[in-house]
Amino acid sequence: MRARVFVTLKPSVFDPQGTTVAEALHTLGFDAVKDVRQGKYFELDIDATTVEAARRLAAEAADKLLANPVIESYRIEVGTDVKETVR
Amino acid sequence: MRARVFVTLKPSVFDPQGTTVAEALHTLGFDAVKDVRQGKYFELDIDATTVEAARRLAAEAADKLLANPVIESYRIEVGTDVKETVR
Repeated sequence: MRARVFVTLKPSVFDPQGTTVAEALHTLGFDAVKDVRQGKYFELDIDATTVEAARRLAAEAADKLLANPVIESYRIEVGTDVKETVR
Repeated sequence: MRARVFVTLKPSVFDPQGTTVAEALHTLGFDAVKDVRQGKYFELDIDATTVEAARRLAAEAADKLLANPVIESYRIEVGTDVKETVR
């Protein structure tokens, strides 16, 4: 089963990487892009029988390794399921 | 309007970062995680009136700056729209 994990800095944390990308886009003429936040994206191929089991495993992996819970939050999407886990 | 851009290495391109994450997860006991691909994730806040305009602008930004089309592919999601642009 395929789980997608999106890790982003919490809204209160300054994102210099995103700011740099936004400035580069403005230099290229993309003035309509008002703000950019950059994050990490993981596609996990999980050996699980149910969507819930895959989601639980992905959340545990995100808590332990993929995200730094002090400054980052993450979102998980599993399979074609549109329900999301936000933390 | 909010556009989300996911940039990943093309399937044919070796992903050492993803492999390292997968090995770290195995060390932590996550044996059910068979494979990991890592990518970049951008949230663009775009000043556009229609979903199509926002999608077009995000695709142009991805082509010009966010992704390296030689080795990377990207996917775009705009707003609550589930239609996706894959390239």
